[in-house]
Parts: sequence; structure tokens; C-alpha cells
Amino acid sequence: MSKKRVAVIGAGPSGTAQLRAFQSAAAKGAEIPEIVCFEKSSDWGGLWNYTWRTGLDENGEPVHCSMYRYLWSNGPKECLEFADYTFDEHFGKGIGSYPPRAVLWDYIKGRVEKANVRGWCRFESPVRMVNFDKATEKFTVTVHDLKNDVMYDEVFDYVICASGHFSTPNVPYFEGLDTFNGRVLHAHDFRDALEFKGKDILLIGRSYSAEDIGSQCWKYGAKSITTSYRSKPMSFHFPDNWEQKPLLTKVVNKTAYFKDGTSKEIDAIILCTGYKHFFPFLPEELRLKTDNRLWPLNLYKGVVWEGNNKFFYLGMQDQFFTFNMFDAQAWYVRDVILGRIALPDAKTQHDYTLAWRAREETLTNDESMIRFQADYVKELIGATDYPMFDFEGVIQTFLVWEKHKHENIMTFRDHSYRSVMTGKMSPLHHTPWKDALDDSLEAYLADGPLDQPKAA
Amino acid sequence: MSKKRVAVIGAGPSGTAQLRAFQSAAAKGAEIPEIVCFEKSSDWGGLWNYTWRTGLDENGEPVHCSMYRYLWSNGPKECLEFADYTFDEHFGKGIGSYPPRAVLWDYIKGRVEKANVRGWCRFESPVRMVNFDKATEKFTVTVHDLKNDVMYDEVFDYVICASGHFSTPNVPYFEGLDTFNGRVLHAHDFRDALEFKGKDILLIGRSYSAEDIGSQCWKYGAKSITTSYRSKPMSFHFPDNWEQKPLLTKVVNKTAYFKDGTSKEIDAIILCTGYKHFFPFLPEELRLKTDNRLWPLNLYKGVVWEGNNKFFYLGMQDQFFTFNMFDAQAWYVRDVILGRIALPDAKTQHDYTLAWRAREETLTNDESMIRFQADYVKELIGATDYPMFDFEGVIQTFLVWEKHKHENIMTFRDHSYRSVMTGKMSPLHHTPWKDALDDSLEAYLADGPLDQPKAA
Repeated sequence: MSKKRVAVIGAGPSGTAQLRAFQSAAAKGAEIPEIVCFEKSSDWGGLWNYTWRTGLDENGEPVHCSMYRYLWSNGPKECLEFADYTFDEHFGKGIGSYPPRAVLWDYIKGRVEKANVRGWCRFESPVRMVNFDKATEKFTVTVHDLKNDVMYDEVFDYVICASGHFSTPNVPYFEGLDTFNGRVLHAHDFRDALEFKGKDILLIGRSYSAEDIGSQCWKYGAKSITTSYRSKPMSFHFPDNWEQKPLLTKVVNKTAYFKDGTSKEIDAIILCTGYKHFFPFLPEELRLKTDNRLWPLNLYKGVVWEGNNKFFYLGMQDQFFTFNMFDAQAWYVRDVILGRIALPDAKTQHDYTLAWRAREETLTNDESMIRFQADYVKELIGATDYPMFDFEGVIQTFLVWEKHKHENIMTFRDHSYRSVMTGKMSPLHHTPWKDALDDSLEAYLADGPLDQPKAA
Repeated sequence: MSKKRVAVIGAGPSGTAQLRAFQSAAAKGAEIPEIVCFEKSSDWGGLWNYTWRTGLDENGEPVHCSMYRYLWSNGPKECLEFADYTFDEHFGKGIGSYPPRAVLWDYIKGRVEKANVRGWCRFESPVRMVNFDKATEKFTVTVHDLKNDVMYDEVFDYVICASGHFSTPNVPYFEGLDTFNGRVLHAHDFRDALEFKGKDILLIGRSYSAEDIGSQCWKYGAKSITTSYRSKPMSFHFPDNWEQKPLLTKVVNKTAYFKDGTSKEIDAIILCTGYKHFFPFLPEELRLKTDNRLWPLNLYKGVVWEGNNKFFYLGMQDQFFTFNMFDAQAWYVRDVILGRIALPDAKTQHDYTLAWRAREETLTNDESMIRFQADYVKELIGATDYPMFDFEGVIQTFLVWEKHKHENIMTFRDHSYRSVMTGKMSPLHHTPWKDALDDSLEAYLADGPLDQPKAA
């Protein structure tokens, strides 16, 4: 019998976790299927693979990256650490708890480079369409090889969709945006805060993007920051030149008007209005439709597509746990494919997802949400050989992180935390976040502050 | 026998020309197939349907529009006038020769509204894939109905691809773009020149986009304009604050360095580096691969796909003739589908395209290119009932237009020309282009200048 074939769509944190999961089984002597990972961009790392490009990339594909220069992790690295590959193992020493993007990208890459699975990836290879043939029970995946500009089909036994859900921006219209005399952009297209130095900027939204892009622009010298919320303001203590307003009602030339009747002259508008789950390459019967929440429906164990148990999704939940949740999911999917885990019947699967949804709907605060996701991840890990870790320890770190943010949104990144994987306390970083204008890997890993770059 | 079905992909100037071509035959008593036009955006007009959006649109689709606020036609309207629907018929009076975008959009829409074919269009309906079944000789078109978020298949006898080729930007990398401390964008994402008021801007390129976006920024108050060319500078007389430089070699922080060793501090970089023919929804055997030129290969009569004579392309040539060339192509394709025109064998088709390519390669200047395309369009019109018009008259208008541009790039739009369709001289516009800051349809159609808007 010929080897089974598995297609993984996307080589970001979820897709690479899947590669590592299979490689780990093979390293322990298991017979594994042939794995092909199709990645749209020219390198792995997903969102963590930064590009200066916005809109469409060098191949005409929508840019996947939603990150920007000078981005530092907005949560402690101790909450996302891989259980099978610690930060200490990768960097050979302790590092601070909120590393910049380049440092986290390096860490993600380190594990899969060690696993030696890059050869399983086909880069610059977006998937255009997936079809399932009920007669043969196989998938046909249509791929565009952009390097050679050739479209081709290949047949697979299993398909794992790990294409992410923070790349297709949700972009609402507000009256007057079409005639605003400045720049309007979605957070997805934000790149260099220095573009907004000395400017009055308006951010629409109250979640992580508004909070972090606002903080960035403040750090890099914006004249003023205004954030506009739909339901309620953010509960942080902001600097004096940061003002919160109720929702934008309209823009006239360069004046923004708000629901409370006030107005403000502004130079740029950044829409921090979230992202959509978007899978234009999937047919109706395989396509997940959900808003961004902790428990999307129709996914048994959060990963197995109930409509077709040979099709899987990774990382489609809203997230407190990130890298290690993707790992738990990837190990689980691997074991379903390897036949180590048997799936129950359709009704049992669906009842399972409905029970989690019912619990999700009772969640009232961050701690309850963190505990909900911890229970989910723990359950998945319990079913596989992924190393179990101290969940209560991670939950406590999340809670201290929230406390630090509410103490001071501009200094919370100056704290450090203990790794539950190594038991070691992370060192304090050598420079306070607000003074660390160079976000490079070299600057972060240095033993003390380097000279600041000229531009910043 | 059931009615044949024709799919048209795109409702821009080419797609709507195809709708009008079929409707015109029906109005004269012909039996026509069922026509379904799939349009990605929510309205028709293609590039002329302006949006403030950049990157991805409200549905997550790449924004089709490459136009910007304050864009006026860069060629005389007398060179693109429909032979079956004049500007005078649409506006009920003579108007100037270089109308703003909104006025041309209104004109395109006027003809198809009169033809009453909007019901043939499905909006917010991007085509995801087209497959041809050799056994049935039919196409399966996979469409995403974005309003209802449903993907579906439909079967057609003929498919006409009219999706344009000025929407997928060609975006080269230059050293340092990834760390430039200002805004970098492609012309495709340029929207409001007032964003660049008082700024030093650098445009890379020497074709229509660089020339026109530079002129716009000059008109709306940019501090300085620098254009950077690969092969040779533009041959226009530019204002004092407009400088031409050889190719950009690198950017360091906010300093641009050029091939001649000079450098300049700049605030923004606009890449006017052209567009790609890009059809991610077409399989290998139907997909046109060409650069932007007057005679792409593999298209008999410039429209019939040689690999499958039931598949057609409209408007894929680089263009001097535009709207009326699309008309000629649409009428020709219609008549092939209606069986009024018989196609020769494959060898004859290919020899035909090679002969035109051979002539294309001898072209040395604009006049020879204009005459080349005029001959092509005239040949198509000769084969159908589309009204023949005075090509030599249009060619002469093109030549005077070029003369006016070289006299003064900032005043050429203040001239007017004679329509070969009506024989009438167009009136001079009431306001010189450089002083007309309001680009609205109302301002352009008014009998004299309206008050200028506050912002400008």
C-alpha cells in the first residue's frame, strides 16, 4: 500500500507545529505519512515573518503579515513557550519576558530547523482550491507555484488548514472616509510608527491592536493619540496626550466627529477593527464560518471538521494560549491521522462541541476565559505524548500580566516571569521598553543597551 | 435545445461592453444566449468605480480600483468615445475633453443603464476557479457569493475573461525599503494627494502613473517631487520643484540614494512600477501569461484563446485605444459565440497572431504604435455591425494630444478636440486643470466654476 499523503496549508506557528508533531513521532520510530506544507509567502513563520509590504505582495497575493516594526510581544513569553523546546534551549541563556517580533520569529524557526523539516514545505505556493471526491475519499488540492507561475493539482488523503485568521482585515466604513484628506489604513497595513511622528492620530477600536499601535505611536513621538470605542473605553491609565472618545460618527475633510458631539482635527485614521476568518480556497462543505471567539462550532476537539473527519483546522480559536495551544492541536490531529486516536460518531462529536460552546457562553471575565482555554488545551495534551506542563502556573502568569498592564500600560513589559517549563525566573531586560527604540534581535539579545539607531 | 450560457468575468469597461454587445444584437432581433456577469465589487465600472479602500476590500478581496481622487482623464475623451453612444447623447451637451474620473464613470454606466442589462450582473461575486470538462465541452465556474458567504458552481458553454490587468501591482524591492521611516506605497494604493501636501515625495517609474501622480501631488501642494527612472528620463518640461533622477539604489532611514551618487531626504516613496496580468482563478490551460504590451500572444484576433476557442479575453492589450477597442473586441467575441463569425483552424489562428507580433516588434515610436492598434481595432469592427468611425481623425487627435503634453505637462488638459462621432468641437472647460481642485461631476458639468471646496 502506498504511503498516505497529508497537505498542510500554511507554515506559520500552527502549520510548523504540525510539521514538528509528525517529525517528533517519526523520531520516536513511528511510520508517518508524506507531509506537504503549502506556504503562500517565501519563508515560514506566518504573522511573525515581517514584511514592509502592504496590500498585495511581490506575487500579487494578499500580504499575510499584520505585524509592524518595533512590535514586542504583548504577553509574557512564559505563557506561550513550547513544552518540547524552551527559550533557554534556543537562546542558550535567559532572556526577558516580552521579546520583540524578530526574537520570537527566531525561536519559532529554531525548533523546526532543529527538526529539519523545511524540505516538507513548498514556498510561494498558495492553495487556490480544495475539492473532496466522495467516491475516492481523497482531496484534490489546486496549487499555484508562483516561482514558476504554474497551477497544478495534487491528491491527498488528509488536509490540515492552518492558514490563520489575523490576516484578512475587517474594514468598516464611516461617513466621510472616502473624502478624508489624510491617510486611512487598517491595523493590518500599519508598518512604521515613525511615519506618524508629530501627528495627531485616531485609532478606531479598543482591543489589542488599538492598545498596542497607540502605545507604539506614543513611544515613537506621535503628537496625540485618540482612540474611539463602540461599547466602552479601555480601562488602562494612558499618558496625557492620549484621549478616549466614543465612536466616530463622521469625518469632514480632516475633522473627526464623535458620538458625544465632540470633534478633533486629525492627520491619520487607523482602523483597529479586527480580522475575519477567510478561506477563499475552500469549497462550501469544508469551509469554517465563525467570528473570532474562544469556541467556534463544527470543530470536534476544536480541530476536526465535523463535516469531514479527514479535514482539520488548527488555531482557529481566539487566543490566550498561542504557540503551545497550536502544539496541543497539532499533536492531536497527528494522532487522529496516525490512527492512535479513534473519533466518536457524528452526534457525539457535535454534542461535545455544543457542550464547550455552552460553557463558553457563561464566561464573564478574562480569568474565566483563560481557565476555559487552559482546560481545553490540557485535555488535548492529555490525549497525546506532548509534554504536559503546569497550567496553573501559566494561568497565574496571565493574571499577573493583566495586573501589570493595569498598573501601567507603558511599563508592563519591563517585568519578567518564571518559566513553568524550566522553573527558572527570566531576567529583567536591560532597557525599559519605552526607551528601547531598536527592536532588532541583536539589540535584544545583547548583554546591555547598544547605541540607539540614528533614525529613532 | 436549452439556451447556451455565457459567463463574463468582470463588469468594468470590457465586461460591460460585452453586455451591451449582446443586448444590441437582441434589440435587433437576434436570439442571444443567457449571459451572467460575475463582478467582484458591489458596482460596475471596473477601475472607474472609485473606492477609498486600499489593500483588501470590505469582503477581504484585493481592491480592484487603482484610481485616486482628483484623477482626470490623461487622454482626450474624443479618442475613447463609444461609436454607439456619444458623450453628447449622455450629457445632453458638449463637455471638455479631459473629464475627471466621476464623469467618465457616469458615461460608461449611462450606456449600460440605457441598455438595461444590470440584471445580468451578480455583484460581490468573485470567480474562484474555472474548469473545462473535455468530455462535456462545458466550463464549471466556481463563484463566491460574498453577500451570503456561499461558494457555488455553475456550468457555462462559453467564458469571457474581462477582469482587467491594471489592478495587481508589480512591486519591486529596493535596498532599505524594509526600514524606511516613512510611507512606501505602490501607485495602486495612492488615493488622496493632500496626504502629501508640504512633503518631499519620491516616485519610482517614468510612465503614466509617475507622470500623473507627480502632477497631482504638485497641483495639491507637495513640497517637492522627485521621479526616478531606470532607462531614461521623461521628456516633459516639469516645474522647478520637480527633479528627475536615475534609479534609486537604496534608502537609509529617510534618505534616498540614486545611481548617479546623489541623495535626497524624502518623506514618502510611491512605486509607479506597473501592473501584472494576474488570473489566480484560471487553471493552467486557460491562463494568459504576458507582460503589458500591444500584442500578447495566444489570442486569435487579440481575443480568442487559441488553446480553447470557447474561452475569450477582452482588453488584455496595452492601450492607446480603450473603450472603443473593448467594444470592437466585445462585438467580435459576441459574433463568434452567435456563430456569425467562423474561426479558422489552429495553425491559421496562430500564424495570424505571430504576424501581428512580428509587426509589433518593428514599432519604434508612439505614432507607429497608435497606428498599429488602430489597424487592429478597425479590422475587428469591419467584421461586425459595430459602427465604423474615422480612425485617421482619432489618430490625429492622439498626435495633437502628445504635442500638447510636450508643450506643457501642466496645461495639456486645458485643450479641447473634435469628436469624430458627432463632428462637433468640444468646448473648453470653464477652469484650467491646475486651478480646478474640485473633481466632482457636479463641478465639471456646471456652466462655470463653483466655489472651491474648503479642504483644497
